[in-house]
Amino acid sequence: MALERIARTAKSSCRRSGGAFGGHKSEKDMFSEGASIRKYCSLPSLERDSRNSNFSYLSSISKVNHNNFWSRGIRTTPSYQFPSAERIVEESDLEYNDPKYPGLEATKPGEKPRVVVLGTGWAACRFLKGLDTKIYDVVCISPRNHMVFTPLLASTCVGTLEFRSVAEPVSRIQSALATNPNSYFYLASCFGIETQKHEVYCETVSNGSLPNEPYRFKVSYDKLVIAAGSEPLTFGIKGVAEHAFFLREVNHAQEIRKKLLLNLMLSENPGISEEERKRLLHCVVIGGGPTGVEFSGELSDFIMKDVRERYTHVKDYIKVTLIEANEILSSFEVGLRQYATNHLTKCGVSLMRGVVKEVHAKKIVLNDGTDVPYGLLVWSTGVGPSQFVKSLDLPKSSGGRIGVDGWLRVPAVEDVFALGDCAGFLEETGKPVLPALAQVAERQGKFLVELFNRIGKEAGKALSAKDIPLGEPFVYKHLGSMASVGGYKALVDLRQSKDSKGISHAGFVSWFIWRSAYLTRVVSWRNRFYVAVNWATTFVFGRDNSRIG
Amino acid sequence: MALERIARTAKSSCRRSGGAFGGHKSEKDMFSEGASIRKYCSLPSLERDSRNSNFSYLSSISKVNHNNFWSRGIRTTPSYQFPSAERIVEESDLEYNDPKYPGLEATKPGEKPRVVVLGTGWAACRFLKGLDTKIYDVVCISPRNHMVFTPLLASTCVGTLEFRSVAEPVSRIQSALATNPNSYFYLASCFGIETQKHEVYCETVSNGSLPNEPYRFKVSYDKLVIAAGSEPLTFGIKGVAEHAFFLREVNHAQEIRKKLLLNLMLSENPGISEEERKRLLHCVVIGGGPTGVEFSGELSDFIMKDVRERYTHVKDYIKVTLIEANEILSSFEVGLRQYATNHLTKCGVSLMRGVVKEVHAKKIVLNDGTDVPYGLLVWSTGVGPSQFVKSLDLPKSSGGRIGVDGWLRVPAVEDVFALGDCAGFLEETGKPVLPALAQVAERQGKFLVELFNRIGKEAGKALSAKDIPLGEPFVYKHLGSMASVGGYKALVDLRQSKDSKGISHAGFVSWFIWRSAYLTRVVSWRNRFYVAVNWATTFVFGRDNSRIG
Repeated sequence: MALERIARTAKSSCRRSGGAFGGHKSEKDMFSEGASIRKYCSLPSLERDSRNSNFSYLSSISKVNHNNFWSRGIRTTPSYQFPSAERIVEESDLEYNDPKYPGLEATKPGEKPRVVVLGTGWAACRFLKGLDTKIYDVVCISPRNHMVFTPLLASTCVGTLEFRSVAEPVSRIQSALATNPNSYFYLASCFGIETQKHEVYCETVSNGSLPNEPYRFKVSYDKLVIAAGSEPLTFGIKGVAEHAFFLREVNHAQEIRKKLLLNLMLSENPGISEEERKRLLHCVVIGGGPTGVEFSGELSDFIMKDVRERYTHVKDYIKVTLIEANEILSSFEVGLRQYATNHLTKCGVSLMRGVVKEVHAKKIVLNDGTDVPYGLLVWSTGVGPSQFVKSLDLPKSSGGRIGVDGWLRVPAVEDVFALGDCAGFLEETGKPVLPALAQVAERQGKFLVELFNRIGKEAGKALSAKDIPLGEPFVYKHLGSMASVGGYKALVDLRQSKDSKGISHAGFVSWFIWRSAYLTRVVSWRNRFYVAVNWATTFVFGRDNSRIG
Repeated sequence: MALERIARTAKSSCRRSGGAFGGHKSEKDMFSEGASIRKYCSLPSLERDSRNSNFSYLSSISKVNHNNFWSRGIRTTPSYQFPSAERIVEESDLEYNDPKYPGLEATKPGEKPRVVVLGTGWAACRFLKGLDTKIYDVVCISPRNHMVFTPLLASTCVGTLEFRSVAEPVSRIQSALATNPNSYFYLASCFGIETQKHEVYCETVSNGSLPNEPYRFKVSYDKLVIAAGSEPLTFGIKGVAEHAFFLREVNHAQEIRKKLLLNLMLSENPGISEEERKRLLHCVVIGGGPTGVEFSGELSDFIMKDVRERYTHVKDYIKVTLIEANEILSSFEVGLRQYATNHLTKCGVSLMRGVVKEVHAKKIVLNDGTDVPYGLLVWSTGVGPSQFVKSLDLPKSSGGRIGVDGWLRVPAVEDVFALGDCAGFLEETGKPVLPALAQVAERQGKFLVELFNRIGKEAGKALSAKDIPLGEPFVYKHLGSMASVGGYKALVDLRQSKDSKGISHAGFVSWFIWRSAYLTRVVSWRNRFYVAVNWATTFVFGRDNSRIG
């Protein structure tokens, strides 16, 4: 019943806002992929210790005027007053009123509407960057305080780039977070959303510094922008989470680097057997997408140039194997794929067809029974919805992402938007779920922030923007794909889709385009300068191989 | 008896090699401070699992021809063949022959003599840098693979400099370690020395990568250079090791930075009480030496410039307190001390007289009963001998360092040298134990490597250099002291000792001298370039505040 209710709402929402949908399916089919209505089961057991003196003076804050929510914010998502909604509010009240979380209370009339942004990835940061903070107050909540320039992350593992050259503090992207009196950045993870109350529930990232840990708090929003990203897919394969490295955050790259340098040094120890030495220096990459290929390329560059010079005792033992179930770089044009295959093979990367069955501490077992001993295992087989996204009681797109309409609104709930890797178009929009790419996320961030700024301006100080036209829905135009393959070579595929025709190029010129394009896309001048300096010094002096920590 | 024997040896050694000693004391007094003859008790319980297949094929390596040792190497430390020595060899044989450690066996006639260097600090790296690898093979053993440019470490905590700008890979300092067939760098800690057998025993730094952990091995040496450094002094105060940060390694600086940024962000969380916020943002530095003062200065710079701009919500809560039992910068000239005191106070650093009684997770208790709540605690009250040095059965200088003669030789044992923080002149040399300073360590490294190269050249391919004159003993000439105090100000004290007269200066010019002097002392051009670039970007863009990991 509940499922049908939201489905109905979603559908009617899309209709009302003028979405150009294809043929509507039956309500039952509509969310067959992702949506499941659990009663906020995502919320962990709540702490109710009201004796705590630090919290007691805050209890007043949690006395939120619920009526207020319905008259605040700039309403771009139409609300639906249907009888069943009452029941939901009632129920959730019972659940949420008990824990006396401290928090940021609802904005008052006359104050600027508060936009709460979950995440600091491409989508969130592009949104934050463009937000007009004269119109809105902004609160950003994320477990990391910086954006990662992900396309260059692979280069940091081997020392081509410094770690901090690819990280951009969020307070530099949107300075209001640091300086405006009612804007904040919270280093925390969101673990629950109460869309009826317009509240998000968070837990700080911490290490024993605070008196009550886990330290939880809530933040009231007028508009919620969910850009919480995705999680690496492990397909439930045993041992991946324990033994493999992912390559999504700067500290992942740091860990990979530490392990790689440690293995290089350990393999030099006296008394290490030939077999053990080979294992230690066998770097295995699972997944032949752009990340896997770029990391393999960087590794082979590192081996060809730096290891040969600076680890001469063990240079003949180091090896890179890229394992992919199908074809590498499957989204690229066939000629480019062939080029990449040839180039990687020439650079000493072994390409292997295989499906991983399970991962052990020192070996991988493939489906065909082959054992692959490894010293370093990097897992990059794509991404899927995070536990947080799965736990949300929101409509879902195919693939389990948060379902959105053409304007990135989450139907059926008020004032909630989702974009980037965590969002997907609902089937009813007639649009495909877009790939989890930086350029998609960035474009969506840009679209949404322009929408926010336009509506905010037109609505002026008014609190409701119900009748403001939203303009054209989001349309994604693929600009092309790039991937470096090491050895000053890259692929550039400017076709707009997999089947269309267009320009594609591979080689040094592509590599130059790849570098220039990324350099111009790096967010700040500071990091642009650092990336250029890093590249220059790597060229002149080689890569740094200090193992820190 | 044993004590007297070694003392006698030491004394006669010094006499024979022409040491210009003052009045000799009685043999009994001679090592009253440090030396204690324990029967190699430093060796932890040994693993005797000979079933392990990886080790079995190596057992032959450990069958060392002991006679060989006495005819190998370039003998600069005279050996003493007296009856009692036989007994020692016999006893130690019993202890060391059982564990079948894999290892680097003794060099054979015709091979280059092998110099084993323990450590990668200032002394070790200066030695390594200058070593003539045409004469010697070199093995460096250290738990870190890089040298740290310690004077600039404080600047990395707040983001003025990048971490890797102050770290120099040891294989760049001495490329033979990476490229020469019989030279190696081992990422390991030495845990025992068998001077009779000319062997050191090591355990690799590891994290579960190797089949047998802890993985131990031995390395035979012809000459041993101990430059293993020191450890921070905690004076047995409860809680220091658990709760305080030291500032001696790059990862210490990383941890301090992470904690500082975390506290800044946590203090912004909604619902944090005023008191808690003050505590979180109270940075306490214990120890008013150059490190403590420089760190306080960097912190106050960070607060005055960056926190005010980028953490405006909490900027009024952050505070730095420097606690010192006596006077800050006690080795500096009185006018400079006064200048530093005034400058730090002006920059908001509270100077506090006090002695720490105990350290708790969130507060310090002083001797007078005062509680000092803190969010970040940095401990820099000087250094003392490490556990490793304490465990060694070698003569000790006052203060418990390894005792050396004027040529940095450890008397009573063959072919062992010690320098840097871990070494001190024996009382009999008539020289004071030198302060634990980078410039002392560096100068000693230079002295010793020149001695090695000269002796090696003169001895040519000959294995014994018994009769080669050693030249002048090491004389330390203090070049002066420098310390930055933040705000583009520094102190330069060019007096040669505490009581002598000389030039001293404080202010911007000193700061300029401080920067230039350190920039020219940074080991490689790569890092020199990076430090300059870091300084320039910090000046233009401010400090980076991404919290990674």
